[in-house]
Amino acid sequence: MGEAEKEKSLPEKKNFSEWYNEILSVAEIMDVRYPVKGLYVWFPFGFSIRKRVYNIMRELLDREHQEALFPLLIPENEFMKEAEHIKGFEDEVYWVTNGGTSPLEVNLALRPTSETAIYPMYRIWVRSHADLPMKIYQIVNTFRYETKHTRPLIRLREITSFKEAHTVHATWEDAAEQTEEAIRLYKEFYRRLAIPVLASRRPDWDKFPGADYTIAVDALMPDGRTLQVGTAHHLADNFAKTFDIKYEALDGEQVYAHQTCYGISERSIAALISIHGDDKGLILPPEIAPLQVIIIPIIFKNPEEVLQTCKDVKSRLESVGMRVQIDDSDKRPGAKYYKWEMKGVPLRIEIGPRDIKQKAVMSVRRDTGEKKNIQLSNLERDIESLLREIHENLYSTANEKLENHIFKCENIEDICSHITRGIAIVPWCGDNKCGLELEDQTGAGILGVPHSPKCSNGAKCPICGSQTQTLVYMSKTY
Amino acid sequence: MGEAEKEKSLPEKKNFSEWYNEILSVAEIMDVRYPVKGLYVWFPFGFSIRKRVYNIMRELLDREHQEALFPLLIPENEFMKEAEHIKGFEDEVYWVTNGGTSPLEVNLALRPTSETAIYPMYRIWVRSHADLPMKIYQIVNTFRYETKHTRPLIRLREITSFKEAHTVHATWEDAAEQTEEAIRLYKEFYRRLAIPVLASRRPDWDKFPGADYTIAVDALMPDGRTLQVGTAHHLADNFAKTFDIKYEALDGEQVYAHQTCYGISERSIAALISIHGDDKGLILPPEIAPLQVIIIPIIFKNPEEVLQTCKDVKSRLESVGMRVQIDDSDKRPGAKYYKWEMKGVPLRIEIGPRDIKQKAVMSVRRDTGEKKNIQLSNLERDIESLLREIHENLYSTANEKLENHIFKCENIEDICSHITRGIAIVPWCGDNKCGLELEDQTGAGILGVPHSPKCSNGAKCPICGSQTQTLVYMSKTY
Repeated sequence: MGEAEKEKSLPEKKNFSEWYNEILSVAEIMDVRYPVKGLYVWFPFGFSIRKRVYNIMRELLDREHQEALFPLLIPENEFMKEAEHIKGFEDEVYWVTNGGTSPLEVNLALRPTSETAIYPMYRIWVRSHADLPMKIYQIVNTFRYETKHTRPLIRLREITSFKEAHTVHATWEDAAEQTEEAIRLYKEFYRRLAIPVLASRRPDWDKFPGADYTIAVDALMPDGRTLQVGTAHHLADNFAKTFDIKYEALDGEQVYAHQTCYGISERSIAALISIHGDDKGLILPPEIAPLQVIIIPIIFKNPEEVLQTCKDVKSRLESVGMRVQIDDSDKRPGAKYYKWEMKGVPLRIEIGPRDIKQKAVMSVRRDTGEKKNIQLSNLERDIESLLREIHENLYSTANEKLENHIFKCENIEDICSHITRGIAIVPWCGDNKCGLELEDQTGAGILGVPHSPKCSNGAKCPICGSQTQTLVYMSKTY
Repeated sequence: MGEAEKEKSLPEKKNFSEWYNEILSVAEIMDVRYPVKGLYVWFPFGFSIRKRVYNIMRELLDREHQEALFPLLIPENEFMKEAEHIKGFEDEVYWVTNGGTSPLEVNLALRPTSETAIYPMYRIWVRSHADLPMKIYQIVNTFRYETKHTRPLIRLREITSFKEAHTVHATWEDAAEQTEEAIRLYKEFYRRLAIPVLASRRPDWDKFPGADYTIAVDALMPDGRTLQVGTAHHLADNFAKTFDIKYEALDGEQVYAHQTCYGISERSIAALISIHGDDKGLILPPEIAPLQVIIIPIIFKNPEEVLQTCKDVKSRLESVGMRVQIDDSDKRPGAKYYKWEMKGVPLRIEIGPRDIKQKAVMSVRRDTGEKKNIQLSNLERDIESLLREIHENLYSTANEKLENHIFKCENIEDICSHITRGIAIVPWCGDNKCGLELEDQTGAGILGVPHSPKCSNGAKCPICGSQTQTLVYMSKTY
């Protein structure tokens, strides 16, 4: 962005934290130089990735949800209504206290999440059973006054890209089914980003403030820690009672509604970058990639013929909907390869005089480096199938890595020796005291009971020793 | 939204202010019942209009601009750097002073506009003449602590949909040319919304704080007042000097850059609704309409045959990219007409047994009410051409209304007698004192010198009586 281009170096990915910080800048995702801690700037290139990711989100949600938009500012009295909810957020809320040069009559919270902005409206909107289910979402900026170490896309003071859905149902069971649906939807979303996720039901002490229960999806980051990349909350009628959201049932009775809410933030993009990238830079799934194919002319002689073929190939691929560019700058081919590999372009096509003679082009995959001759006669078909293969390979590679980093552990020692490399799956009696003790002794967090339950065959809780059927995921978390 | 559907009444449009407030609610554009003054909720239907309007904006800007995203919160020290700029905004800024339960070290402004958030980054990004021009935009929420009477979409405390572009250039001339380009772009944008606009150069006392000059576009609202619906500012090197934005010229010298910025907000949607709507509700240009064609089955007998034809027509129209729905609810046809007219659907198609017998359908235009038989054999072609005609008719109707409401006026009396019905075009000597006096004596505002200059043929300034070549637009403004 505006700097004389040069080959900037990237630390090896095995030094994940350094690699992560550096790639955001070198690949022009986020600029961390904004003069307030925890606030970052989306570079245009990063923003174009964000746009595609959130378009997928919209596509999936628009099947059954409607998009709306609620205000950022929440009056203190509404915000303070739900006791559990406040307790969970009070340390993290930014307060607007002044307008112009005078103090406001009522302080305004910057939404950390929008329950207390939306539910006063739901109180008016929900009238009858015929209005249900109501499924609405918005994509907005939200704010958390983080006192912990902030990190771009992961721990922010302005979450710029919070997708939050809020649904209203007639019964507890309908809301439970919607919570399941949210998790199915999130798995589909992450499948489109070629990211495998684990769903689990969070332990009580880690559920959303005010919720009945929380199911979350986590992704495994390259350093063995997990990143919570989506949550779905069954709110029961807790908020309905606070905000007086009732509907008239078939028998004419006024009944409190049941609700769910579920959210995903730009952590989805942190996972995307971290899981697929390598020492050379980004690797983007083709559907997300702002540029899907970069064409590099290899010019010794006959530059016109080579450039003409490049243009023909570009326009043929564009006509089947691909995003293609020719790099005909003055740089040497090596520098071009370097640049576009850094940007994660899934496929490079090299075209030189020898290729033209053979009526072919050379394709080079970003994910595997594999080279393949493509006959011009089969161009569109073969490139499309290569892009599909890249997507599938990214997913299966990530999925294999995830599966290879889930370790069955039976005791504290076991857990401690594995937890720095990935996820432990551990028997737990279900008692909160044992759970917190487990976290304390291992320095890891309990993610929760796997959403597709795994049977423990009668193992023993590492803390109290009682036999249990329940297994939980544990990991170091972000 | 969630209320048992009933036929709600709309005041006549000649009572514009009442009509406007009511249509926002009845057509489900904005909900004004949010519990903070000046903050409103976008209903899903309103939001889907907003989405299409802003997609057009993005399409036009993406030709030569890049979309990015900068933080909402601006630290006090950056915000206070540009003296003129502060003076213009200090009464309107919301201040965040507390994070969690403690005061912040540095107060944070909610952006009223983003110059002071973006330009510290431009200082880093702009290095060499090769980086210029730099053209970036973002679409964000911005905040103004309005003390005047607030009004949905028009005068807000949270502007939810501010599109602001910020460009950097090597010279004053390049920036001037970009200001022209911005106005061309805005005219094209409003043409796509079928809205005619007048461009004029704002008088000095009404330019953007910190700008060299401001060109604005205004739309004529049904009550004769004008609504400023877009502005483009030539910033010269004023902000570049404050924020130290320099580039290395070809000769190696460090030179201050020249800048422009230009913005459009959801006032574009206020104009869209107000200018095209009528006593029956919204009238939406087809490109914007969430639903372009509503099909109403007219069922006396043979309901299967009628419904099957409706489905066939729907799928034929959808296959050419139209947004179509069948209303096969139990309501009587009249109630259906009422509902979809209110929602502004450009075209209604009625299909009954008699139509089927004639291998035809009946089309009814929302804008003119005109009915037309369409042969099924020509369905797609004829409907497409009707939609085009509707768009053109909306534009030419609005344009005619605008032209008929521009009045040549020579003296104060003239102005006063015309200004409540539209725009006065008035000779002005160019002296600020006379300009302010003109505004004072007429109770109207000077919009500015028409962007396509109109020659006055030596008329006289109504205040000082001196001969002048300059004419200005005056109007009552929002």
